[in-house]
Amino acid sequence: MSGLTHFDAQGNAHMVDVSDKPVTDRIATAEGQVKMAPETFALITEGRAKKGDVIGVARLAGIMGAKKTPELIPLCHPLPITKVTVDLTPDPDLPGLRITATVKTSGQTGVEMEALTAVSTAALTVYDMVKAVDKAMEIGGIRVLLKDGGKSGRFEAT
Amino acid sequence: MSGLTHFDAQGNAHMVDVSDKPVTDRIATAEGQVKMAPETFALITEGRAKKGDVIGVARLAGIMGAKKTPELIPLCHPLPITKVTVDLTPDPDLPGLRITATVKTSGQTGVEMEALTAVSTAALTVYDMVKAVDKAMEIGGIRVLLKDGGKSGRFEAT
Amino acid sequence: MSGLTHFDAQGNAHMVDVSDKPVTDRIATAEGQVKMAPETFALITEGRAKKGDVIGVARLAGIMGAKKTPELIPLCHPLPITKVTVDLTPDPDLPGLRITATVKTSGQTGVEMEALTAVSTAALTVYDMVKAVDKAMEIGGIRVLLKDGGKSGRFEAT
Amino acid sequence: MSGLTHFDAQGNAHMVDVSDKPVTDRIATAEGQVKMAPETFALITEGRAKKGDVIGVARLAGIMGAKKTPELIPLCHPLPITKVTVDLTPDPDLPGLRITATVKTSGQTGVEMEALTAVSTAALTVYDMVKAVDKAMEIGGIRVLLKDGGKSGRFEAT
Amino acid sequence: MSGLTHFDAQGNAHMVDVSDKPVTDRIATAEGQVKMAPETFALITEGRAKKGDVIGVARLAGIMGAKKTPELIPLCHPLPITKVTVDLTPDPDLPGLRITATVKTSGQTGVEMEALTAVSTAALTVYDMVKAVDKAMEIGGIRVLLKDGGKSGRFEAT
Amino acid sequence: MSGLTHFDAQGNAHMVDVSDKPVTDRIATAEGQVKMAPETFALITEGRAKKGDVIGVARLAGIMGAKKTPELIPLCHPLPITKVTVDLTPDPDLPGLRITATVKTSGQTGVEMEALTAVSTAALTVYDMVKAVDKAMEIGGIRVLLKDGGKSGRFEAT
Repeated sequence: MSGLTHFDAQGNAHMVDVSDKPVTDRIATAEGQVKMAPETFALITEGRAKKGDVIGVARLAGIMGAKKTPELIPLCHPLPITKVTVDLTPDPDLPGLRITATVKTSGQTGVEMEALTAVSTAALTVYDMVKAVDKAMEIGGIRVLLKDGGKSGRFEAT
Repeated sequence: MSGLTHFDAQGNAHMVDVSDKPVTDRIATAEGQVKMAPETFALITEGRAKKGDVIGVARLAGIMGAKKTPELIPLCHPLPITKVTVDLTPDPDLPGLRITATVKTSGQTGVEMEALTAVSTAALTVYDMVKAVDKAMEIGGIRVLLKDGGKSGRFEAT
Repeated sequence: MSGLTHFDAQGNAHMVDVSDKPVTDRIATAEGQVKMAPETFALITEGRAKKGDVIGVARLAGIMGAKKTPELIPLCHPLPITKVTVDLTPDPDLPGLRITATVKTSGQTGVEMEALTAVSTAALTVYDMVKAVDKAMEIGGIRVLLKDGGKSGRFEAT
Repeated sequence: MSGLTHFDAQGNAHMVDVSDKPVTDRIATAEGQVKMAPETFALITEGRAKKGDVIGVARLAGIMGAKKTPELIPLCHPLPITKVTVDLTPDPDLPGLRITATVKTSGQTGVEMEALTAVSTAALTVYDMVKAVDKAMEIGGIRVLLKDGGKSGRFEAT
Repeated sequence: MSGLTHFDAQGNAHMVDVSDKPVTDRIATAEGQVKMAPETFALITEGRAKKGDVIGVARLAGIMGAKKTPELIPLCHPLPITKVTVDLTPDPDLPGLRITATVKTSGQTGVEMEALTAVSTAALTVYDMVKAVDKAMEIGGIRVLLKDGGKSGRFEAT
Repeated sequence: MSGLTHFDAQGNAHMVDVSDKPVTDRIATAEGQVKMAPETFALITEGRAKKGDVIGVARLAGIMGAKKTPELIPLCHPLPITKVTVDLTPDPDLPGLRITATVKTSGQTGVEMEALTAVSTAALTVYDMVKAVDKAMEIGGIRVLLKDGGKSGRFEAT
C-alpha cells in the first residue's frame, strides 16, 4: 500500500503535480441511493408527470455539480470534462431512488471525484425537494463503480 | 402527508416563497460516514501527525461546502449562515470516519441542506485524499439528526 | 432626470451605499422571449414529453441564474432572495417561447436585476439546448414589467 | 432537421459526449442591443468621460460573463477560452448601445454560448448602471452572427 | 491577549458562532500599494485616457473581489454587504498606485476581510494588466486602517 | 518597453488572444509575507499543534485560491493548472510568516497570476484567523520570484 499522495514528505497538503502524466481518455462511473418511506416513494414516482419532476431536477443538479468538483474538493485538479450523464431510477424494493453518474475527460488525471460529486449533488437535491414530506430520508451507498484510462489501470467495484 | 412544496400547482419547479415567514433562529445537525479498509483506516489515523492531516483538510472542505449549498442545490434559498462546525471521528468498528456537521442561521428557512452538504463535501474530500490507496471506500448514512427553529417544529432522527 | 448613481462625483464606479435604506419587502417581474423557426417551435413543444423537456431545464437554469446575479453584475448588491419563479410559455404566433420571472426579497435594494438575469439565463439555456437544429434563434424583448417595494415607488411597464 | 442533442433517447437531459470530437480552433461572434430613451442615451454618451464610464464597466462584465458560461448554462461544457472581446457602440438611431462579442478557443465544442453570454451580461450591466434614470430600457436582438471551426461548419447570420 | 477564536478547545477549525451577536452597522477601511518602475508608472498614468484605463479595471475587480470574500477565506461568514468603494491613486514618490477600500454592512460580524480582499484583488489586477512591461512590481502595505461597529470597538491603525 | 497588452488600439480592455501561442509547460513561483506582533507570532507557532493549525488552514486556502484566479482577475485566461504548492514558514526575525507558492500548467499563457493569488489568499487567511488578537498585521512583499516556459523567456527576481 503506497502513501497518501495529497501530502508531501513533511505531511503538508498540496495539489499533486500531474504535469508529467500523459493526456489520456478517462472515464469514471459512480453510484449511490436515497432511501425514503414507501409513501414518499409513491408520491415521487406517481407524481412525476403531474406533481413535479423530482428526478429531472435532481439529474440537472447532478450534472452541474460535476462541473463544480474542483471548487468543492480542495486538492482536486480542474478538468475540461467532455461528458456527464446522471440517471435516477426508482427502486420499489429500496424504496427510493438509485443514482448513477458517468463522467469522461481527456486529461492528466481521473474523473472519479466528478462522478462521485454528481451522484452526491443529485442525492442532496432529491432530499431538498422531498424534505417537506419526509425528513428521515437517508443518502448512502456512494462509491466508485468503474474508473479507467489512467496509469493506475482499470478499477471495477466488486 | 402534504405535497411537494418545490413545485407549483402545474408541477413546475420554483423557489418557494418564504417572504412571509418570520426570521427565527434555526439550527440543523446532519451526520454521515466513510467506510474504508482496515489498512486505510490505520494509515489515516496513525499518520495524522506525520503523514498528513486528512481530517483537518476534510473539515475545512465541509465548512466551505456549507457556504456553497445554494449554488449546488437548485431550489435552495441563499442564507447568511452564522455558524458551521464539522467533526470527523475515527471509528475502528466501522472502520472509517464518522462525520457530523452543525449549522446555524437567523433566517426564514432552515439549514438542514447546509448541514447535509457540509457532511457530504467532507466525505467526498476524504475519498479524494485517500483514493490512491483505497478506491473501494463507501460514503453512506447521510441523514439529518436534528432540525429546529422553524414553523414545522423540531425534528429529531429516531 | 437624476444622475448615474453607480458613479461617484469623480465618475468612478462604486457599489452604492444602501446601508441607510430601510429593509422593505420588494418584488420585481421581468419578461423576454426566444424567437425561432416554426419547425423548431414544433420540435420543442410537441416533443416536450417524449424528446426532452427544454422548458423544464431552462426554468431551472433561470432560477439558479437569479442567485448568480451579484456575481455577474459588477455593482449589484448581494441579496437574500426569498422567492424565484420562472415561466416559459410557448407562443405559436411568435413563434417561440415567452419567458417571465418574478423575484422577491426583504432587503435594502430592489430585485429587478435578479428578475432580468433569470429571464436572460433561461433564454440563453433555450438557445443552448436547441442550437443544434436552429442557430438563427433570437433573444429579445427583455425588460422589467413591474418593480415595487422601494423608495422610488412602483414601476410598471406601459 | 436533426433531433435535440441535449437529451438522450429517453428524453433525459445530459451533457453531450464530445470526447471523440477533434480539438479544433473555434470562433463565435454574437450581437445584441440595449434600447433606451433619448435622454438616457445622451446622459451615457456625453457623460462618458466625466460622469462615469458605463461602457467600460459593461465591457468588463461581458468579458467576465463569458468565463461564467458553463456555470450558468446547465449542459454547457467547460472550455479553456483563449480570447474574449466585447464592444459597445453608441447608436443614436436606436437610440442605445449595440453590443458585439467575439470568443475563441481550441477545443472540442463551440463557443457561441460564451459569446451570447458575454453580450447578455454586458447588456444586463448597462441596465443596472442606468436603471436609476430609465427603468423602461429593453434588451434585444441577441443572436449569433458567426460560428466557425467545428464539424457542423461555418454559420453566418443572414 | 485572548485566544484564536477560529479554533475550538481541541484546536479544530470552525466557523465561529455569531448567532447571538446583535446586528449592527459595521464599516472597515483597508489600504495597500503596488510599487513599480518609474517607466511603468509613467505608462499607466499618462496612458490612462488613451492607452487603457488600468485603474478603472482594477477598481471594478476590487469591488467584485469584496463580494467573493466568503468563498476565498475559509472561515469567513457570508455577509450582505451594503457598500463598497475602491480608490487607486497614483503616487509618483512610490512610484506606483496607492489603494484604499471601504466596505459597509449591517450584520453580526465585521467587514475588514472584505476590505482587505478588495485591496488585494485590485492590486493583483494591476499586476496582471501591467506585467507584460514590468514583472518586478511588488504588492505590499496591505493592512486595516479602520474597523468600527462591533463589540470589540473601534480600531484605527497608528 | 512595449505597450499594455490588455488593451486594444483604442484603449479598450480585452482578454488577449492567445490562440496562436503554443501549448508549453509553464511554471511560476511567487512569495509574500504577513508581519505581526511578537506575541502573535509566538501564539501561532507555539500553538500549532494544540491551539489550532493556522498554517494548515492558510495553505489550503492558498491552493483553492489559485483555482479561483480567472474568476478574480478580470482579464485572466482560465487554465487547467496541474500543480499547486503553498508553503508558510515562520520567521522570528520578521516576525511573521513567509509564504511561497508554485503553480504549473501546460497551456498557452503563464501562471504567475495563479501563484500571486495563492500567496495573497493564504496571507488574507492568516489575517482572518489571527485578527481577534492582532488587527495591526501587515501583508506585503508579494512578488513573482520565477516565471518560465513561455515565449517571453525566463524571469527571475533579483
